[in-house]
Amino acid sequence: MPTLHLIPSPIAEPFKLPEDIASLRYFVVENLREARRFLKWNFRDLDIDACQFLEINKNDLDKAAVQPFLQKAMNAKADVGLLSDAGVPCVADPGSLIAERAHNLGFRVKPLVGPSSLLLALMASGFNGQSFAFHGYLPIKDQDQIRIIRGLEQESGQRNMTQIFIETPYRNNKLLERLIETLHPNTRLCVACDLQAEKEEIVSKAVRDWKNEKHDFHKRPAVFLVYAR
Amino acid sequence: MPTLHLIPSPIAEPFKLPEDIASLRYFVVENLREARRFLKWNFRDLDIDACQFLEINKNDLDKAAVQPFLQKAMNAKADVGLLSDAGVPCVADPGSLIAERAHNLGFRVKPLVGPSSLLLALMASGFNGQSFAFHGYLPIKDQDQIRIIRGLEQESGQRNMTQIFIETPYRNNKLLERLIETLHPNTRLCVACDLQAEKEEIVSKAVRDWKNEKHDFHKRPAVFLVYAR
Repeated sequence: MPTLHLIPSPIAEPFKLPEDIASLRYFVVENLREARRFLKWNFRDLDIDACQFLEINKNDLDKAAVQPFLQKAMNAKADVGLLSDAGVPCVADPGSLIAERAHNLGFRVKPLVGPSSLLLALMASGFNGQSFAFHGYLPIKDQDQIRIIRGLEQESGQRNMTQIFIETPYRNNKLLERLIETLHPNTRLCVACDLQAEKEEIVSKAVRDWKNEKHDFHKRPAVFLVYAR
Repeated sequence: MPTLHLIPSPIAEPFKLPEDIASLRYFVVENLREARRFLKWNFRDLDIDACQFLEINKNDLDKAAVQPFLQKAMNAKADVGLLSDAGVPCVADPGSLIAERAHNLGFRVKPLVGPSSLLLALMASGFNGQSFAFHGYLPIKDQDQIRIIRGLEQESGQRNMTQIFIETPYRNNKLLERLIETLHPNTRLCVACDLQAEKEEIVSKAVRDWKNEKHDFHKRPAVFLVYAR
């Protein structure tokens, strides 16, 4: 039974992949240039030109091309690798569609261990890791955003749940300000920024304490976590 | 600033830890015997008797002992390592209390990449990875369990959210039966079992298709995922 390998890619420093990935010839990738570079960094002798790549894209996921690509590999009894742009495939990215199709076609689906900024942020936050939810991006419009933040805070308190979300990096400081204004002073807020990089910064404290100290997360990849008890 | 290192431990095969972990002398661990074995496997020359261990326990977490232990390390300007029983600390285990205390005492908190069965299961499920929630264990009593399963299914449909939960391994087959009986035939159900082990088995399909084939997950560590569209 051919296997779809879910291959993590670096969020900061590159890392070693298992040796058997070097034998793959079919790849579905979110970013062709990054994927080729990372594979080459791992397997210097890999014949990239002998590999077939299908590039998918966050905004313009070519759903129609996925099925025939996987079918071709299946017909050739060949394994496929799936690589995200940064981090583990299928979490906070559109890769799950490929995993779903692979299951339906009869592939074995094999997830590999790798860096996930969401998981690292949750670990480091000190917030409840026995009940949590990830919500992707919040709405941008002021009134919608405030409404959603209040709803997530309320739900966090009622269900004893950590709420996790992300923002486009150039809007981080604006969202932080919004959170500090909107959340109850006792609610805990964590920002986990530049994870796994030299300048990694993880701040976790009550909203009241965020008001006393200035932080700058502008254009730095960050994960936001809220926990109300 | 001393650092609390969040150190992953094996869920199946052992793996190499970063070299700087060998210099730690303070450890908070969920399982003393497993933690010592894994550290020794990594660092043959580690002088275990020179290390101080605080053992915490799922059912009887000695909250009172955490604070003085961390304070002692802080006074000695020494880093601390936190190890869970299996997987990454602070996710699906009580470790987040230690990370919270560490933040409050002024430690830097540094999460290390490692295996998380929840994350691996989510990746491999093919379900929505852009919105998901983890709920820990479901209630055991029949009527409560059925009510919660229905609620999670409904919420999954309404919020387009993957619902993740776990069960005590000897009750896996009972829960699976319950899910197949209770969920709508179109709802997708994934069981990710023995992750990272030789006998890893990840089954993801519509509930109607679960009815046609017998599966046995008895006493095997498993993660359950539900996705209703």
